[in-house]
Amino acid sequence: MRIGMVGLGKMGGNMAQRLTRGGHEVVVFDRDPAVTAQVAQLAGAEPAASLDELMQKLPAPRAVWVMVPAGHPTEQVLSDLADRGAPGDVLIDGGNSNYKDSQRRAAELDARGIGFVDAGTSGGVWGLENGYCLMVGGTPQSVGVAEPAFRTLAPQDGYLHVGPSGAGHFTKMVHNGIEYGLLQAYAEGFEILEKSGMDLDLQKIAGLWNHGSVVRSWLLELLERAYATEGQKLENIRGWVADSGEGRWTVETAMELDVPAPVITLALQARFRSRQDESYGAQVIAALRNQFGGHAIKTGAPEPPKA
Amino acid sequence: MRIGMVGLGKMGGNMAQRLTRGGHEVVVFDRDPAVTAQVAQLAGAEPAASLDELMQKLPAPRAVWVMVPAGHPTEQVLSDLADRGAPGDVLIDGGNSNYKDSQRRAAELDARGIGFVDAGTSGGVWGLENGYCLMVGGTPQSVGVAEPAFRTLAPQDGYLHVGPSGAGHFTKMVHNGIEYGLLQAYAEGFEILEKSGMDLDLQKIAGLWNHGSVVRSWLLELLERAYATEGQKLENIRGWVADSGEGRWTVETAMELDVPAPVITLALQARFRSRQDESYGAQVIAALRNQFGGHAIKTGAPEPPKA
Amino acid sequence: MRIGMVGLGKMGGNMAQRLTRGGHEVVVFDRDPAVTAQVAQLAGAEPAASLDELMQKLPAPRAVWVMVPAGHPTEQVLSDLADRGAPGDVLIDGGNSNYKDSQRRAAELDARGIGFVDAGTSGGVWGLENGYCLMVGGTPQSVGVAEPAFRTLAPQDGYLHVGPSGAGHFTKMVHNGIEYGLLQAYAEGFEILEKSGMDLDLQKIAGLWNHGSVVRSWLLELLERAYATEGQKLENIRGWVADSGEGRWTVETAMELDVPAPVITLALQARFRSRQDESYGAQVIAALRNQFGGHAIKTGAPEPPKA
Amino acid sequence: MRIGMVGLGKMGGNMAQRLTRGGHEVVVFDRDPAVTAQVAQLAGAEPAASLDELMQKLPAPRAVWVMVPAGHPTEQVLSDLADRGAPGDVLIDGGNSNYKDSQRRAAELDARGIGFVDAGTSGGVWGLENGYCLMVGGTPQSVGVAEPAFRTLAPQDGYLHVGPSGAGHFTKMVHNGIEYGLLQAYAEGFEILEKSGMDLDLQKIAGLWNHGSVVRSWLLELLERAYATEGQKLENIRGWVADSGEGRWTVETAMELDVPAPVITLALQARFRSRQDESYGAQVIAALRNQFGGHAIKTGAPEPPKA
Repeated sequence: MRIGMVGLGKMGGNMAQRLTRGGHEVVVFDRDPAVTAQVAQLAGAEPAASLDELMQKLPAPRAVWVMVPAGHPTEQVLSDLADRGAPGDVLIDGGNSNYKDSQRRAAELDARGIGFVDAGTSGGVWGLENGYCLMVGGTPQSVGVAEPAFRTLAPQDGYLHVGPSGAGHFTKMVHNGIEYGLLQAYAEGFEILEKSGMDLDLQKIAGLWNHGSVVRSWLLELLERAYATEGQKLENIRGWVADSGEGRWTVETAMELDVPAPVITLALQARFRSRQDESYGAQVIAALRNQFGGHAIKTGAPEPPKA
Repeated sequence: MRIGMVGLGKMGGNMAQRLTRGGHEVVVFDRDPAVTAQVAQLAGAEPAASLDELMQKLPAPRAVWVMVPAGHPTEQVLSDLADRGAPGDVLIDGGNSNYKDSQRRAAELDARGIGFVDAGTSGGVWGLENGYCLMVGGTPQSVGVAEPAFRTLAPQDGYLHVGPSGAGHFTKMVHNGIEYGLLQAYAEGFEILEKSGMDLDLQKIAGLWNHGSVVRSWLLELLERAYATEGQKLENIRGWVADSGEGRWTVETAMELDVPAPVITLALQARFRSRQDESYGAQVIAALRNQFGGHAIKTGAPEPPKA
Repeated sequence: MRIGMVGLGKMGGNMAQRLTRGGHEVVVFDRDPAVTAQVAQLAGAEPAASLDELMQKLPAPRAVWVMVPAGHPTEQVLSDLADRGAPGDVLIDGGNSNYKDSQRRAAELDARGIGFVDAGTSGGVWGLENGYCLMVGGTPQSVGVAEPAFRTLAPQDGYLHVGPSGAGHFTKMVHNGIEYGLLQAYAEGFEILEKSGMDLDLQKIAGLWNHGSVVRSWLLELLERAYATEGQKLENIRGWVADSGEGRWTVETAMELDVPAPVITLALQARFRSRQDESYGAQVIAALRNQFGGHAIKTGAPEPPKA
Repeated sequence: MRIGMVGLGKMGGNMAQRLTRGGHEVVVFDRDPAVTAQVAQLAGAEPAASLDELMQKLPAPRAVWVMVPAGHPTEQVLSDLADRGAPGDVLIDGGNSNYKDSQRRAAELDARGIGFVDAGTSGGVWGLENGYCLMVGGTPQSVGVAEPAFRTLAPQDGYLHVGPSGAGHFTKMVHNGIEYGLLQAYAEGFEILEKSGMDLDLQKIAGLWNHGSVVRSWLLELLERAYATEGQKLENIRGWVADSGEGRWTVETAMELDVPAPVITLALQARFRSRQDESYGAQVIAALRNQFGGHAIKTGAPEPPKA
């Protein structure tokens, strides 16, 4: 099929390539013209200098995949595309949008006769070769328009129409919440191994566990690879972990549903903590312990952390 | 090689089979003679009516795999075997023993000239076909004696001599701690999906995620399978989860090493909670809220839970 | 001063009494006329049959304390009062409203010339005798109008103008978040004591700790009282704990501020768990353990819990 | 009564003073003779140059309060005193010993005819003026010997014979576990207030909440005091929090009893985290996110934290 791709970062750029490799014609646009040119050449895609041009280069009903950051950028691009679109067109949001936004956008676009598909996308930088796992929400009609692209982007059995609008991003949100928990579980285990004083070879153990053990997983394969690249001490990697929003939304959703989700929640909060040089809460406790017990407090500037 | 197998439950019985399939001669013993006979026939192994007979049927230096419950049963069997053994023999504990016990036992047996190998074993009931992931601790000499068996029991690359005595069970302990965290992460995610009111097909989503997504894993393959067997509501499975000791030891070890391990710890405590019909702590809070706020309390016998 | 009181439940009814005892003239209204009559008589207050009548009975600038459930009821009453009010009037929300609602309402009312005060109120059913701790947000002018009432409702030093609109309910929200954590800490400790098998007298220990120990607190005084009333087993109190919203908002706010708040969060989630007869997440884990390890699962309807 | 006091640190020194103020005759010993002399003078107590001298200066049956660090020091002092004692003497361990050690020591001393009392002691540096909360375990006979001292050390109603040997330190252990949870709850709440951007005065709020609110407590009084001394930013106090053992034992005990204790556990683990400059677990997650998503990692030495 012929499809537009807006946003050509790590994800969008690779997806354009995977689509052209799969025989699709892709019209690409990034707000940075140099990126547009580069991806167009790399992917054998058709560059567009503007959203206007992109829309003009697509046949009706148009299908456009939007792969820009969640929040304001996605809102803006969808709005701009809708203004340039026509009834019957289908806009696909492949980013990590909040499912409530997707539900709202689907309704707003539907009122203008434009289809909307929320396509939760997992696979990261490996998706180009391995394919992307796609969790898709929308009406059967809208999903049907873009389905040839979905089948190319996903590996065998890696695409599913999970439900109505919002269901795709909802499913992706929970997927990422689980991912937070899995990552933290491995992180804790390997920290225990590292500090055990038993001189264990963590790269070999990560590899070992991928052969027959209960905890084998793709993340563990990546961990073996990370140790091979970075060394066991990970000394060039700071323990500073960003979060993208989906973990928070999972926790919020768990609260809305009265579901206790301690592991996902604690995994998220461990990321908050990883970004603090100093914990004010811990300062409060140190101050209180000094008050009631005369316990020593460390004062002044913290020692410079070891590299 | 010729090897003894003591304890022929789900794990030991299957291992005997995998060993004979791999060309080894196995002398088997279970405290239940009927089980001994059954496994001997099923595996094409040689039955022994007693530990004495088992030891007599093995050539020096003997190698005996012990696969009985951790704690007292393992202690007893190892002691009984050592009493019947001779210098040069090697006893292998494939169970879920505490690594500190294994360190102690290795030293005690070493003083009698008997080798000891702690072989952390993962793979469950699937190990018969897929092989068992083996995390092995002990001296090179003792490990060397049993290595032919290890290579048969494990799948390709699924066996590793991780360190000295205790290192095998230590590694297995942490493996299981991680497993607790992984299980709880999936559990929370699927509870959110189930209660979302979005009418999602959890079997299909479990399957989908195994194709290209970041959270793909063997546990997730099993979850797809469980849903296929049990249905999405899991209505015939109570939310009652046992724990075998290794989760607790991981938490204790984390405390000894000053490692914060919130996810593993909370996953363990969620199991405790799953086994309580009523939470005394929650009763305390209900009583207190009634005291200060006059908040309503539910009184009398709890409502009969839904089936 | 002369002041209106709308909503005469446990809190509002007692506050009307405390105000009249303190020499104020209070016009009371509840949507249930019988309650209005009862509180009017009990408090020596003036009953109003409608919001219209209540507003007519107050001199300009009117001050009305609203003590109805957060959310829709508060929204409705504030709107109805504003429609009947005049510039210069001051409406005080003493309930547990979300501080963001209070910020919004303050702005909306300000646009109509009506003052708004968010008065976070703590103290529960004991407030009638002990006074209510008041955390007040709003403009100095609006707060000043109602200050005589605040001084009567609060005990000595128990009233503070903490900041602009929203700051009162924000402070109260965090107060309640802390309360969740404190309650859960005591709950866990007393559950450990109860299950220790040491035959400890929990009522006496709760009492003891209030004399010189580091953990002494008002909640602990109430716990001693609860044990005196209910007995150590709390057998007539189910472990079922409601939550009113402020715990959730504290967790949401912590996420917005990137503050790790594990204790407050877990305390909230323990309440969710207390309201589940069965944990679907635990069912998932039981199903998975059965899949990989052949571990026994409990099937069928859960055993009827003990009374 | 006449009583010995061994160990004259912050706690023991103050207790000697409180005892002499209460009319008791106290023979004091510290392994540092200068401390012995200082406390003797301050308290009007009788100095002893050695444990031998201390024991000689006490009438039979002797009562000696031991106030030295838990673990080896306590073990040694109790052993040295028992060697110098006689049947009928009573040794009191007022420190933070593990209750299992106390149970063992009681049995060992009992075999020699010497009484043992485990006296869990709370109150910190404020105990001198306010009295110490005493949770006492032992036989009625042994407790009876030292009871006059207990009544002086404790405030009114602040002394209780909670059960047999070990019960005192068990109760104190749980007390401290609760304390961990309370501290962390306040810490989280005040971190949220501090980071709210609402310019709240935390000293005033801590003070306010002690007047009529549900969260009022002695710890909160101390927090008001800490803010008065240190300022709201606590800039001279590092967020580095020690732990003394009792939190860990509470968590271990909870595991032994299958009691979920998330709040106490997380409060302990937050202390572990407070003592880490860098989290290896977070490094693992950063490495993994880079592997699968190409997410940026912070490399090289961490930035020097702000003072």
